[in-house]
Amino acid sequence: MDFSKISSFLESCDNVTILTHKAPDGDTLGAGFALCRYLRSAGKKANVLNSEELPERYSFLYSWYQPQQFEEQTVIAVDIADLKLLGSKLSAYAEEGRIDLCIDHHVSNKYFAKLTYVNASASAACQIIYELLSYMGAQLDKETATCLYTGIATDTGCFKFENTTAAAHIAAAELMKYHVEFASINRKMFDVKSRARMNIEQMVTNEMEYLFDGRCAVMTLTSDMIEKSGIEPAEFEGLASIPLQVEGVEMGITIKQRHEKVFKLSVRTAEKIDASAFCQKFGGGGHIRAAGCELNGTLEEVRKLVEDSAAELFEGENS
Amino acid sequence: MDFSKISSFLESCDNVTILTHKAPDGDTLGAGFALCRYLRSAGKKANVLNSEELPERYSFLYSWYQPQQFEEQTVIAVDIADLKLLGSKLSAYAEEGRIDLCIDHHVSNKYFAKLTYVNASASAACQIIYELLSYMGAQLDKETATCLYTGIATDTGCFKFENTTAAAHIAAAELMKYHVEFASINRKMFDVKSRARMNIEQMVTNEMEYLFDGRCAVMTLTSDMIEKSGIEPAEFEGLASIPLQVEGVEMGITIKQRHEKVFKLSVRTAEKIDASAFCQKFGGGGHIRAAGCELNGTLEEVRKLVEDSAAELFEGENS
Repeated sequence: MDFSKISSFLESCDNVTILTHKAPDGDTLGAGFALCRYLRSAGKKANVLNSEELPERYSFLYSWYQPQQFEEQTVIAVDIADLKLLGSKLSAYAEEGRIDLCIDHHVSNKYFAKLTYVNASASAACQIIYELLSYMGAQLDKETATCLYTGIATDTGCFKFENTTAAAHIAAAELMKYHVEFASINRKMFDVKSRARMNIEQMVTNEMEYLFDGRCAVMTLTSDMIEKSGIEPAEFEGLASIPLQVEGVEMGITIKQRHEKVFKLSVRTAEKIDASAFCQKFGGGGHIRAAGCELNGTLEEVRKLVEDSAAELFEGENS
Repeated sequence: MDFSKISSFLESCDNVTILTHKAPDGDTLGAGFALCRYLRSAGKKANVLNSEELPERYSFLYSWYQPQQFEEQTVIAVDIADLKLLGSKLSAYAEEGRIDLCIDHHVSNKYFAKLTYVNASASAACQIIYELLSYMGAQLDKETATCLYTGIATDTGCFKFENTTAAAHIAAAELMKYHVEFASINRKMFDVKSRARMNIEQMVTNEMEYLFDGRCAVMTLTSDMIEKSGIEPAEFEGLASIPLQVEGVEMGITIKQRHEKVFKLSVRTAEKIDASAFCQKFGGGGHIRAAGCELNGTLEEVRKLVEDSAAELFEGENS
């Protein structure tokens, strides 16, 4: 698949449903609404669907959006690597042959669509949509540019993370020309926290445990703390990266209670340690810098398991 | 002054002392060391001076640097708007006629040098040095690119703030090609905190007071808290922006104790409120989004003054 094929596909399609992934983020919504707005500007009918109610924090991406009435002819998935990510309300689209085109930047893409375009070196799905629309000579406007900028900014941590490419900066430079209110967007996306989020950050920082000369930090998040703080599920994003913000910490482990004796482990590492290998020992997995797994037992049992396993890593290197 | 004149100046100069501003940040050091490295690569002798010991957090900018012995012929100031910013150890350079060239991006530049190049719309002094070196066709390397990237990233809050320009993104895209370890730099510059900093953030968040339906947040930082936390002066950077991170807060006020009955006020505002006008009432000033002033009295007296003044602002608008 290349841009010339996708561009022919988009030119000939109509009555388009655009699917975005569950637990929606700035990239899937930015890509979905940017594509929708482009298709509508080309005289086609198009809607964006998500399995969940869209979080208020992204409402600036689609303030212009009203669903349209039409008989669906085309289905496009954006930023969706796996049919599982459609979520329960969109599960009907998981049937074979329902999705015509998938545009994605995840190396793990399962190629479930009839046509798939994956560029795993793109910083964001919005980066691909930006390059595709440029290739097609599409006329952008402030609303579309806002969607695309937001997707690139959120997926790269505002151009901070390893996945930021020169192309991402160039896209940002171009998109800014459409009067994107990037400073206000970035403040909203990266700086502003609810009081509930402030509360939970405080609680977990208070209780943070430092091990192995401060090279490993373990943070615990019990159901009780979650309830007390009043935090919403959408606000958990990025919480697991807090331990790694402490100077000297090379591995940050977050133990989050799911049920009475079920805990979700989120592991983040700074330079050398393989988070994925660590989690694989417990049947989990992920990336080298961010991985996860699920553990059963009491909090004490789970903490002991985790600390013993970390000890092998930190004490093992001296033996 | 334009690039052709500065470039002739740089080509003909030698034995260069480059001055950077006191309380050094990523931009002044990045610009200074990038310029130094360029001049040395062109066969000239050059040193970088600062009034203070350089903070450890910027050591990656100049790990290659050793001072050279020479009889000073040329003095260049970078990112210095005012001679006061030289600091006490460099005060000899504040005498008239000592500084040959000043390269800066502050609109408030006092034009104290024999030649001054100011571009107030540049995101950073490093942005100007980058464009100057490009204009001169200078060969960059990883070390120079690291200096320039860091200055642009730190002065724009990693491309987050209003002062980020399309040109800043384009410079970043170009500089990344020299294998700048930007993710690790950004982690160090923006994410990592000492435990002392973590402590103080926790203390001030615990004590934060919300006024006027949460539209104003007041944070107090007493000498006692500062001592207890173990925080170093260099680590205070950005602390005053914490109140504004809370959802709904439009004005964040930080009251920091300087002496028993002397307090420094730092005011940050989000959208509409003029921080500078607020501080002017107390004899201070600054920018529309960030300003400061000094107040005398007990903490209780200072708080009352501040709250009464804020009340005029928040309650006045309804009358």
